[in-house]
Amino acid sequence: MALVVQKYGGSSLGTPELILRVAQRVIATRAAGHDVVVVASAMGDSTDDLLDLAARVSRAPGPARELDMLLTSGERISNALLAIALTDLGQPACSLSGPQAGVFTTPEHGNARIVDVLPTRVRQELDRGQVVLVAGFQGLCKDTDDVTTLGRGGSDTTAVALAGALRADVCEIYTDVDGVCTADPRVVPAARVLDRVPYAEMLELAAHGAKVLMPRSVEYARRHGVAVHVRSSFTDRPGTLVADRPHPADQEVEMEKTAVTAIAHDRGVALVTVTGVPDDPTRTAKVFRVLADAGVEVSTPVHKGTRGHVDLSFTVAHTSAPTALTALHTAVTDIGFTAVTCDHQVGTISVVGAALCSEVTATICETFAALRVRVGLLTTSALRITALCAQDELDRAVRALHEVFALSTDNIGDQAAVYAGTGRGW
Amino acid sequence: MALVVQKYGGSSLGTPELILRVAQRVIATRAAGHDVVVVASAMGDSTDDLLDLAARVSRAPGPARELDMLLTSGERISNALLAIALTDLGQPACSLSGPQAGVFTTPEHGNARIVDVLPTRVRQELDRGQVVLVAGFQGLCKDTDDVTTLGRGGSDTTAVALAGALRADVCEIYTDVDGVCTADPRVVPAARVLDRVPYAEMLELAAHGAKVLMPRSVEYARRHGVAVHVRSSFTDRPGTLVADRPHPADQEVEMEKTAVTAIAHDRGVALVTVTGVPDDPTRTAKVFRVLADAGVEVSTPVHKGTRGHVDLSFTVAHTSAPTALTALHTAVTDIGFTAVTCDHQVGTISVVGAALCSEVTATICETFAALRVRVGLLTTSALRITALCAQDELDRAVRALHEVFALSTDNIGDQAAVYAGTGRGW
Repeated sequence: MALVVQKYGGSSLGTPELILRVAQRVIATRAAGHDVVVVASAMGDSTDDLLDLAARVSRAPGPARELDMLLTSGERISNALLAIALTDLGQPACSLSGPQAGVFTTPEHGNARIVDVLPTRVRQELDRGQVVLVAGFQGLCKDTDDVTTLGRGGSDTTAVALAGALRADVCEIYTDVDGVCTADPRVVPAARVLDRVPYAEMLELAAHGAKVLMPRSVEYARRHGVAVHVRSSFTDRPGTLVADRPHPADQEVEMEKTAVTAIAHDRGVALVTVTGVPDDPTRTAKVFRVLADAGVEVSTPVHKGTRGHVDLSFTVAHTSAPTALTALHTAVTDIGFTAVTCDHQVGTISVVGAALCSEVTATICETFAALRVRVGLLTTSALRITALCAQDELDRAVRALHEVFALSTDNIGDQAAVYAGTGRGW
Repeated sequence: MALVVQKYGGSSLGTPELILRVAQRVIATRAAGHDVVVVASAMGDSTDDLLDLAARVSRAPGPARELDMLLTSGERISNALLAIALTDLGQPACSLSGPQAGVFTTPEHGNARIVDVLPTRVRQELDRGQVVLVAGFQGLCKDTDDVTTLGRGGSDTTAVALAGALRADVCEIYTDVDGVCTADPRVVPAARVLDRVPYAEMLELAAHGAKVLMPRSVEYARRHGVAVHVRSSFTDRPGTLVADRPHPADQEVEMEKTAVTAIAHDRGVALVTVTGVPDDPTRTAKVFRVLADAGVEVSTPVHKGTRGHVDLSFTVAHTSAPTALTALHTAVTDIGFTAVTCDHQVGTISVVGAALCSEVTATICETFAALRVRVGLLTTSALRITALCAQDELDRAVRALHEVFALSTDNIGDQAAVYAGTGRGW
């Protein structure tokens, strides 16, 4: 008998019919002899609906504490409905809020981080034979005794954190796609679902545009050794296991070969260039300080000096671009730059895999060249090579690279398939 | 009873006295009830001595097949001596060459990659109650039936690969330092030995100057899920476990916090800048193709366009710089660049950890600024931030960053200590 944590996203819980379907899946897992803890998101777009309601009673809804109190009701509703459905189907179930489940966080309302998980109550309810439903995306700040929300990726992170604290055998993330693919199937029809992706590579994919998991939950899983199983809530396909430790003896593959796992792309970035910064380490440090203080995350920075001044380029999330520009312009005298430009018509493509070498970099550049696509920035590491290009070139470049690295074939022994272990059991 | 693979480096086997000491440690491990497989490197500098001998019989020693035949004798000697010592101390032991141990490789003499490990013979000898000694750094190419050597990091990789194939409980790497440190203790006297480092972070450290493990063996361990325990062969200190899956419930730490694990630095890099490349993706791709074909690994590439042409900068290993320059100059007409410069007076500093954010980048830049050190290149990812600076500034920058990130303290709950799990059992 295993202990399974299952997380269902909003799209899997959008209607009462879908909730009943989730209930059936939970019961099937129980019937297979496993203990089940479920972390459910709010139904469909109900979080947005709650935010709309708030905007209709106030032009600048607040305080943050009250917004969190409001938003956390979304998960309470879906969990309670699921508990009602399960009970009705003969399966004892009990829904717990994040605080009841022992999820403790930092005090930042709207963007709290998990500090600790003490799932005593969860264990008690499991021991009574119940399915335990935990509201995702929320916790309790011990210092203030207030309810907090975890921000983006919060429900996945709740599920992974609970699985870690309970030492569950697996954390299943149910979503509306079949698993982690070799590329976005909407862009690359030949994309294939991967059987297994190691943590470090999944982290790179998630951080560079793969939407299926949030980087935050992957980083949590990596740091705490939680096996994450990404599956569709609409099919019975096997999905993707995110975990290390495949069994080498099960794999008839060359053991040290370069292996491209998948290609991520990200349309959601903007390229910011700060020109004419005086060539003085204090000034350039200020650029990064100003952005960090404004909460802007910066990727792939490049700086280039020419005769007494420096031009700094970097990418930020689209959504952070206005904040970044405001922060920089506010500090213009302090930093002493001459101009800031922001290009939204760009995107990044990241080739992720193992033992990536110069050969892979050269192949990527040649693929871009054959398409006559200009590479803006290029960054490399052992696990990821990222190139920036014009946004309208993104799709065909992703397709071409998917083809060049032969990612649609699943031959064991093939370059693309070193990680595609055959054993899927956990 | 566990199965333990132990690897001893040349410095641990430099004299007959040291070999006897290793034998005692092997016997102690057997006495604790474990099965032991030992992978021994050649004694001390004996590989260099063999290369010297070859240079004295030929100005350009070859063929490569014969060099491999020559070099592989170094490990045969140390292993046989160790088997003799063990037998003499009453412990049955049996030494096997790489081919006898079932290590199969690609055909490249001097730089072969492991293709497969089939340790049938190792298992048989273990079942007979023997300690099995396997010669590291060598294997057999199935196609040619010739002995090959694995190149740099080969003995560590042999040990990790054997541990993976045998599903050993741990692969112990014995060396002349106490484990993986928060920085090079020769540069930072306050550096601390880490209890545990996850694979992905160890890979970043090893790839950016931490000498204790070769990136290749870490990547192998990560891909095949082998727990690696780095220890001193001269002390009984606990050393460092390289593995994922700490037990979160054992750690009273904030679970999602940014955590700097360690700082690596690398004096062994050169900064190559190719200026005036025509701004045409085919030409820039050629730069990378020429380098890849010459076997040069390129890091932190930066390209920057100005009016019709592009300047490309990147770092290469010192040792690869001549090859890189020759390859580029041979292709000058094809690429169409105007000049190549190569700066050997540089080094890189890499801050490695988990959930690294803009705050960390800003802090790094501010630390450099406070020292009045100019940062050349800067690259960031979720697990590593690398800065390039003048080589003679390297030491004080490493010390300052070690101080800023409070890496010498081991307080659980402290920023630096998120990974420092208390449980060390495997």
